[in-house]
Amino acid sequence: MKIDLNCDLGEGYGAWQMGDDAAMMSIATSVNIACGFHAGDPDIMHKTVTMAKALGVSIGAHPGFRDLHGFGRRPVPGITAAEIENLVAYQIGALQAVAALAGHEVTHVKAHGALSNVACEDDMTARAVAAAIKAVDPKLIFVVLANSKLVDAGEAAGLAMAHEVFADRAYEDDGNLVSRRKPGAVLHDAREIAQRVVRMVQDGAVVSVTGKIIKMRIDTVCIHGDTPGAVDIARGVRLALEERGATVVPFARR
Amino acid sequence: MKIDLNCDLGEGYGAWQMGDDAAMMSIATSVNIACGFHAGDPDIMHKTVTMAKALGVSIGAHPGFRDLHGFGRRPVPGITAAEIENLVAYQIGALQAVAALAGHEVTHVKAHGALSNVACEDDMTARAVAAAIKAVDPKLIFVVLANSKLVDAGEAAGLAMAHEVFADRAYEDDGNLVSRRKPGAVLHDAREIAQRVVRMVQDGAVVSVTGKIIKMRIDTVCIHGDTPGAVDIARGVRLALEERGATVVPFARR
Amino acid sequence: MKIDLNCDLGEGYGAWQMGDDAAMMSIATSVNIACGFHAGDPDIMHKTVTMAKALGVSIGAHPGFRDLHGFGRRPVPGITAAEIENLVAYQIGALQAVAALAGHEVTHVKAHGALSNVACEDDMTARAVAAAIKAVDPKLIFVVLANSKLVDAGEAAGLAMAHEVFADRAYEDDGNLVSRRKPGAVLHDAREIAQRVVRMVQDGAVVSVTGKIIKMRIDTVCIHGDTPGAVDIARGVRLALEERGATVVPFARR
Amino acid sequence: MKIDLNCDLGEGYGAWQMGDDAAMMSIATSVNIACGFHAGDPDIMHKTVTMAKALGVSIGAHPGFRDLHGFGRRPVPGITAAEIENLVAYQIGALQAVAALAGHEVTHVKAHGALSNVACEDDMTARAVAAAIKAVDPKLIFVVLANSKLVDAGEAAGLAMAHEVFADRAYEDDGNLVSRRKPGAVLHDAREIAQRVVRMVQDGAVVSVTGKIIKMRIDTVCIHGDTPGAVDIARGVRLALEERGATVVPFARR
Repeated sequence: MKIDLNCDLGEGYGAWQMGDDAAMMSIATSVNIACGFHAGDPDIMHKTVTMAKALGVSIGAHPGFRDLHGFGRRPVPGITAAEIENLVAYQIGALQAVAALAGHEVTHVKAHGALSNVACEDDMTARAVAAAIKAVDPKLIFVVLANSKLVDAGEAAGLAMAHEVFADRAYEDDGNLVSRRKPGAVLHDAREIAQRVVRMVQDGAVVSVTGKIIKMRIDTVCIHGDTPGAVDIARGVRLALEERGATVVPFARR
Repeated sequence: MKIDLNCDLGEGYGAWQMGDDAAMMSIATSVNIACGFHAGDPDIMHKTVTMAKALGVSIGAHPGFRDLHGFGRRPVPGITAAEIENLVAYQIGALQAVAALAGHEVTHVKAHGALSNVACEDDMTARAVAAAIKAVDPKLIFVVLANSKLVDAGEAAGLAMAHEVFADRAYEDDGNLVSRRKPGAVLHDAREIAQRVVRMVQDGAVVSVTGKIIKMRIDTVCIHGDTPGAVDIARGVRLALEERGATVVPFARR
Repeated sequence: MKIDLNCDLGEGYGAWQMGDDAAMMSIATSVNIACGFHAGDPDIMHKTVTMAKALGVSIGAHPGFRDLHGFGRRPVPGITAAEIENLVAYQIGALQAVAALAGHEVTHVKAHGALSNVACEDDMTARAVAAAIKAVDPKLIFVVLANSKLVDAGEAAGLAMAHEVFADRAYEDDGNLVSRRKPGAVLHDAREIAQRVVRMVQDGAVVSVTGKIIKMRIDTVCIHGDTPGAVDIARGVRLALEERGATVVPFARR
Repeated sequence: MKIDLNCDLGEGYGAWQMGDDAAMMSIATSVNIACGFHAGDPDIMHKTVTMAKALGVSIGAHPGFRDLHGFGRRPVPGITAAEIENLVAYQIGALQAVAALAGHEVTHVKAHGALSNVACEDDMTARAVAAAIKAVDPKLIFVVLANSKLVDAGEAAGLAMAHEVFADRAYEDDGNLVSRRKPGAVLHDAREIAQRVVRMVQDGAVVSVTGKIIKMRIDTVCIHGDTPGAVDIARGVRLALEERGATVVPFARR
């Protein structure tokens, strides 16, 4: 039983910090690094890559919309597929170069924030992200939300994929995430989250809000580090997995 | 007699334009493309790369300081060598990825504006630029101002170099450019500039303001496209070179 | 017969320029100055205000969304009324202070780009813009597109208003602008535009695409300066108005 | 014995926070609010102003260089006096307008970071800051580091001034701050800092590193909120002052 834990890191900017990168880096096995458009800058990227290399953590680009002020959480109305390809390619290449400087290698890509949300539901956007990844380096692994348009786009592009579930999000019967606007969408109890992740990984399935068991491919579990208590929750997930005999290892190294 | 003509392009941002890129692209054989820190954005980069590919023009990254408002013309006091390495690597990688998307290849790097000015005189900065280039891709050609610290840094890093002279700048007896603050630093007469460039290329030498002949390696001549009359001057340079039998060809293809 | 001609100016940023500000400043009687969020910066604002003062041209703030890269032409999904109030107030105050430095006075406010487009159709946005104006200075004149939600918002806030028509845009039978996506939405013939504006001002009415005469209050005609031929069109409008005896004068001075 | 405690606040940007604004707002009597160039945005400004109003805390503009990435800590080589006037005026006006929206009033201005450091030693810069304040509103109080060029500039401009000392910085015999590069430049012991501030305020003097007593006008003591332990140090300063009978009150209300 092998599983990866992925986390968004390097989300500061200049003098500002976001979350506890050092703590999360000791828990996650793959980290998604902000590339300067919604967060991150070359110095933070270099520092994050260097830390990941030292700890044997796999790194991926985490491209987002150009929106520093909104942290990439706002959709960009009217943006074209070509513009999405350009900004995704740009950000991947930027991280690859900084990683080369730090002696590490980018092995995956995961879309951030509104870019990800839109791409999960919109074919055009999902395909633009996949096209950019393929053009820059067809060996990059595309991290995709299980059941989303990203899976189709990754398949159409012939990319290797890592299917992702969320440790702390509730699922609908159709396998989609419960909208954050609904009560119970996000779980907060550390013990419950840890047990839930163990079950997901053991069973290769997610249990929906109605108790339905939804089989799905699970390569990586997304954990968060930017809220109070997040580090403890993440640590609990990793410990619970290891106690049940799971090997927590980067998907890029399986 | 082979020579390259290089020009800074892709210096718009969003809705703003700078210079006549299409005209200069038909004259230059190597173009230095802004990478988003002082000018340029992923869309303009892609458009510029695509145009270059169609015309057989070589492309290079033109990294500058993070200074959109000042167009990268202001030094950044206190910036460290590591920070310079990071921002240069970032920008090269970004262009490489956008070029991959457009089916073209980055073959050189030239520092922009204040980053270039500082690096020409400061060892630490020059070495940081060279170190970033080498880490990202040691086959990239480093465009260096003849006689500057950039040459030493490129040699120390073992990078291939293209030595550059300016079509429209006067030279001191020691081979340095006459400061822009002195009268006569910049030439404006199209005919004079064209004749001067022909002589530089034929003789492998620059004539100083006092008439002294200074032998130097000349691989590329820098031409400008962002001032009134610039396109006509540049066109005159190319015609004059071709009339004297020079082959105007990218240094990356020699 | 008195009429104002208004124009968006000061839309450069740093080293970049947009349109021919000097030419348009000699034609318009009221100018809407970009305040740094979608275009403009303190230096360009100061230069524009100084030029306006010298020519007796009235100045207004032209606040837009925070979107330098998209020139404020992209809506911002999910932005709240409070956030719109804050950014509009911020930009008005910034221009007022720069104007004070230059010895001139801000007398009006006109929303820019996507902020204007959204506000014309959305009550919440229109009221937020009006509320910000009122809070900063209730004597400021609100430039409103005739027939839009801006009119209602301005009335509800008790603001003085200047009703605006476009020199070069076609109108539907209901008094709304023909969408730019439809053919014929924008007029390009200088002579036609000039005659049309004269008729609008003489009749206090707009003629729709079907020939219907729509009476409306007209205090100012919007002219553009950022497209090829725009300056000539604008000059033609002013000359035509003056030939018919109209006094072209700032609405703020009537 | 009346004294003011001033603190820099509102230094987040978008999703990023800096320091514990709520805690410091309950300790300081005057707060210097970032205006969007090195930190802060209209929403954070509005939130900070609203909190200040609720607590009866005086507010001031804290203008800095345009340098979000460097937090305004980097000088801007070659910037002109006119450019400094423009950016200072812009930022003051922006805060005034946001304050009007929140029903509060800007009563002072203090330069931030590198703008302040440069202005303390450079006449041209100091006079540009003072000129901008005077042009925008001559009743604004100019917060000046005792013994600096700011004092001369404020006097020349005829501005009311609040003379400032630092709670946690060591002083040279000539009344200047000990450079941060020297050991002992910054004090860290909460008890020592509190006692020191009490003595400063009681004596109207600073004790230098050699024990020399330097008389100076002291209207306000600068306290910090952005380092670990800073809130406790600041609270200790206020308590110590109040125990000795000092009235801690905004300088703007004296």
